[in-house]
Amino acid sequence: MSETEQVTLFHFPLDPFCRRVRLMLAEYQVACTPEEVRPWRDAARLPALTPPPELPVLTQADGMVVAGMQAVSEYLEETRERGIPSLLGETPAQRAEVRRLTAFFDGRFHMEVSGVVLMEKALRRLLPREMGGGAPDTTRLRQALARLPDYLGLIERLSAARGLIGGEHLSLADLAAAAHLSVLEYLDALRFDGFEAAKIWYQRIKSRPTFRPLLADRVAGILPPAVYTELDF
Amino acid sequence: MSETEQVTLFHFPLDPFCRRVRLMLAEYQVACTPEEVRPWRDAARLPALTPPPELPVLTQADGMVVAGMQAVSEYLEETRERGIPSLLGETPAQRAEVRRLTAFFDGRFHMEVSGVVLMEKALRRLLPREMGGGAPDTTRLRQALARLPDYLGLIERLSAARGLIGGEHLSLADLAAAAHLSVLEYLDALRFDGFEAAKIWYQRIKSRPTFRPLLADRVAGILPPAVYTELDF
Repeated sequence: MSETEQVTLFHFPLDPFCRRVRLMLAEYQVACTPEEVRPWRDAARLPALTPPPELPVLTQADGMVVAGMQAVSEYLEETRERGIPSLLGETPAQRAEVRRLTAFFDGRFHMEVSGVVLMEKALRRLLPREMGGGAPDTTRLRQALARLPDYLGLIERLSAARGLIGGEHLSLADLAAAAHLSVLEYLDALRFDGFEAAKIWYQRIKSRPTFRPLLADRVAGILPPAVYTELDF
Repeated sequence: MSETEQVTLFHFPLDPFCRRVRLMLAEYQVACTPEEVRPWRDAARLPALTPPPELPVLTQADGMVVAGMQAVSEYLEETRERGIPSLLGETPAQRAEVRRLTAFFDGRFHMEVSGVVLMEKALRRLLPREMGGGAPDTTRLRQALARLPDYLGLIERLSAARGLIGGEHLSLADLAAAAHLSVLEYLDALRFDGFEAAKIWYQRIKSRPTFRPLLADRVAGILPPAVYTELDF
């Protein structure tokens, strides 16, 4: 992506996919103007496409639009500046493993844990009633939180065996997993009890300079716990 | 991917993601041995990975494993033989649009329509009771089928404006959308009433030689309607 292109990222701060893309943009050193949107009410501010675009949405001054997590991730990978190491890895085998793990967190973990916690602890308060706003479903929230230790155990095993989740080097799998966990942390739903290696892994990703803008996020009406901004929790 | 590598694809014939990958393998002229599995009971036949792999799973004689729809799709794209046109497109902008539309069918359409129809019309009969087997939820099935016309209308608009879904040339978006529709068709749940352009588009994809192996699929206990194998329905 050329430095002279003016790039805008439309994002919702608590969306784990938008967070992962913000981390990618920072790691790939792409300068961009963030535009915060609430997707359920700000559709008119997004580019008109068939079907309507899903967040994150990246636009360029030349009219180009890249919409949705898959398209944006692969676009940033394909257009990164020479000399910046790939977050997917160098060989087809490494890239396959990083994509597999990334898809696991974006798919299963989001469906069973982070997406549920986001809905019940945040979106219920923000959404209009006809779109699901209202009282949280505490049973559903409790079930999601009960599944968290399985995933922390998995992060523990992967990072203990490999150094990081996708291997020895920082990869998209680390950014994806940390983005999902950071949403839980913002919503005061992240406990590492007993998973010390997973905690060390998260601390390592969270202390990267590229993570700082995420730690400064504040969503009106939903404040994070103090630990959210601490790097040596 | 080298022709001398021995490639195996573990797949479940009614899974739309496995179908899409079979179409990709055929379009990219990768010779492979299909291994049919029922994921809920044949996990031991799949390679041991952390976390356990999700279908489709591609293995090579040299021990390489590529698992999950995202990883397999992008792997086939990255390792295709020179001279075979890309199913994603040539420019970053084209590729972004094809990935956006592919993700739309794999995400929203699968969640709202094809995944529900597969569950209620097929998996309920095949799964053990403790994994969701039993009587279909007819209300859920009816809701899914009621949403189908919206998606057919979308295919109608896209293919009328562009020739095919992702543009003028065959793309992964066509294969993904057709793979999902073919599952509905196998399960006698596809009606094109009023969407003539969508029907012509589907007929065009379905009549490609690469589609033929899918039309020969038979899942024990679940027979497709006669129209499933007809190309001029």
